[in-house]
Amino acid sequence: MIAEIICVGDELVLGEVLNTNAQFLSKELLSLGINCKKHTIVKDKINDIKYAINNSIKASSFIILTGGLGPTDDDITMQAIAQAFDVDLVLNNDILSEIENFFKVRNIQMPVSNKKQAFIPDGATILNNPVGTAPGIIWEVKKNTFILVFPGVPYEMTEMWNQSAKDYLKNISSENIIIKNLKHFGIPEAKIGEKIKNIMTKDNPHVAPYVDNGTTRIRIKAHSESIEKSKTLLENTEKEILKRTAEYFYGYDNDTLESVVGQLLKDKNLTLSMAESCTGGLISSKLTDISGSSEYIKLNLITYSNEAKVNMINVKEQTLINHGAVSAETAEEMAKGIKQLSGCDIGLGITGIAGPTGGTPEKPVGLVYIGVCNHESLNVYKVQLNSKLPRFKMKTLACDYALNFLRLFLLSS
Amino acid sequence: MIAEIICVGDELVLGEVLNTNAQFLSKELLSLGINCKKHTIVKDKINDIKYAINNSIKASSFIILTGGLGPTDDDITMQAIAQAFDVDLVLNNDILSEIENFFKVRNIQMPVSNKKQAFIPDGATILNNPVGTAPGIIWEVKKNTFILVFPGVPYEMTEMWNQSAKDYLKNISSENIIIKNLKHFGIPEAKIGEKIKNIMTKDNPHVAPYVDNGTTRIRIKAHSESIEKSKTLLENTEKEILKRTAEYFYGYDNDTLESVVGQLLKDKNLTLSMAESCTGGLISSKLTDISGSSEYIKLNLITYSNEAKVNMINVKEQTLINHGAVSAETAEEMAKGIKQLSGCDIGLGITGIAGPTGGTPEKPVGLVYIGVCNHESLNVYKVQLNSKLPRFKMKTLACDYALNFLRLFLLSS
Repeated sequence: MIAEIICVGDELVLGEVLNTNAQFLSKELLSLGINCKKHTIVKDKINDIKYAINNSIKASSFIILTGGLGPTDDDITMQAIAQAFDVDLVLNNDILSEIENFFKVRNIQMPVSNKKQAFIPDGATILNNPVGTAPGIIWEVKKNTFILVFPGVPYEMTEMWNQSAKDYLKNISSENIIIKNLKHFGIPEAKIGEKIKNIMTKDNPHVAPYVDNGTTRIRIKAHSESIEKSKTLLENTEKEILKRTAEYFYGYDNDTLESVVGQLLKDKNLTLSMAESCTGGLISSKLTDISGSSEYIKLNLITYSNEAKVNMINVKEQTLINHGAVSAETAEEMAKGIKQLSGCDIGLGITGIAGPTGGTPEKPVGLVYIGVCNHESLNVYKVQLNSKLPRFKMKTLACDYALNFLRLFLLSS
Repeated sequence: MIAEIICVGDELVLGEVLNTNAQFLSKELLSLGINCKKHTIVKDKINDIKYAINNSIKASSFIILTGGLGPTDDDITMQAIAQAFDVDLVLNNDILSEIENFFKVRNIQMPVSNKKQAFIPDGATILNNPVGTAPGIIWEVKKNTFILVFPGVPYEMTEMWNQSAKDYLKNISSENIIIKNLKHFGIPEAKIGEKIKNIMTKDNPHVAPYVDNGTTRIRIKAHSESIEKSKTLLENTEKEILKRTAEYFYGYDNDTLESVVGQLLKDKNLTLSMAESCTGGLISSKLTDISGSSEYIKLNLITYSNEAKVNMINVKEQTLINHGAVSAETAEEMAKGIKQLSGCDIGLGITGIAGPTGGTPEKPVGLVYIGVCNHESLNVYKVQLNSKLPRFKMKTLACDYALNFLRLFLLSS
């Protein structure tokens, strides 16, 4: 079953407010097996809303509207719907009592303009608003075609969705869709695309790669006549993909490199200490985003200056003179030094040129060295990032590389 | 002038990714005097993209597309554009060289599929992608009607916008709109709304407050028959606002608390050292996002465990026993200790309960103490954040409070 979402509001179209409603509704619809086909975001203009409705009704069984239900003159979604289907707006006395009551319990006189919110298209069913005055509606406008209308305020919309609309739709929908994301690091989208080219041609399960910085995510979507069969379909495809991509795979859905590293440290009962230079504390911050990270994080240093590297973690002055602060040798000594200082099981040192200045022909902006050691072995990794990345992205990507190398080190040790 | 935005991508329509591109572009267009009329978000389906383009072209002078420029088979935005206007896609050798070079400098063989990204509609002009392989285009498809195409990855899109598209459009657009944002910290939107209520009623300059975590931003938009007159209008309103809000005001437009603090340290020729606990390195990371921060950042510590606090920066064991790790006394000793250890001019210590666990009735989740000292004075600040905030938000807000207290300390010392 197919849905379209129409969000109404000048504030959305002008970019003053980020549209979180469309994302929420798409996800929720999908969890009910209803596939969203399009989002349309229009201003508070009656003709624009009507045009969007008339367009959507051609292809979709569910038209979900948000916004434009307020009491002021620019709130005209109900009028637009009535005009689009050529019905009247009729006063609903149940809604009127609800609105009157909303103000009564707050000891406020109801503004005259709020009466407007009690008018709904003839034939529609009310969706109660547990947290505001604007009611929503659900309306089977023709056989198997439904219009649902929600307030634009995200909190009111989600409450109304959770408390009434969701169950209503669950009863109508009957599809069994499952989605799973496989997350990979260190492989470009195109290369992963080549590896799974023949898997991507199928319609069900549908497989597509997406990229976000260093992470390449493969989304698998399966549907069938039962949830169990959808699961089997999905799992078979997952196995087939991982056969080809396992060396880059690090986790599923909401997993992050830091959550996976944190879990590995916990599972292996290891503590970690880091000396960061170019990432300036970002790796430490990401790892401590995970609740419970105090089990494995005790002490980290940001040794930004050469003096800090020498005085705090015993990087040799001669190493800095001979090889420079951004070198494999310095990264190695940083890893060893911080491990020694902290008494932790694992030491990580990272040094690089975050830019935009500070690069040379031999050591361009984006050059990063990462050292990782435990009590018996030490690895140093070199990465050359795109020198044109903005500083913040450079730090983020250097951090992700470090976390991924750390993950591989933990897996192999 | 009117624009429409079309965002292409299954991940957007299915709600897997929040659509920040549409908001960014709407805002940017408005700052150039181009009014956005509609956003349409469609899947990676050629007919859906074509339909959206054909619909938009009827009403708008600028059609802005994002997404679907990748190298894989489901990236078909250029094909859809070519079909919509019945032109061929032609191989552009400049783009091909750029893409080949992108892989060459990374020592990776170019995947065959990336060649696809070098085909653009006949007649279009390239927008270089400084940070990825997918080029964008700008194309005057008929007199005074422009198609602009950007990658879907937000930072590639914003870089391309900032580095090439913006200036191009500035030359086409002719309105005299100026926008300025005044950024405030530590005052709720409603309270700032009360202070500037009568200023907000005017149409020109138009004044509106927005809120983003602790920062309350007041946007002033002025227009008139000349840029100079718009400027004067805006400046008069700015003065009127700052008369009422100065104590919370910290900067303009792209200023951040960390950039303002960095500039103050630079101006006063001071160095700063920090010992972070609950923020886990986030303050250090934010301050080192600023290019040139190595002038004032030398050494920071994340003293996550009690042992690290005692061993590294001389927090007294007795202080931890008597008052706990989250206390004014500990924050004070952390600030003094890190200043002593680093030899920097300013010391900052922060300790708190980031949650979601670890709170008690006396010390609930969200309790944060911040100590700041120089060679002659020391301040300790206490903040109680909303205990229900997710951990990441808690850390971010604690970080912003610390930066703001540091800013005020630097201003007054």
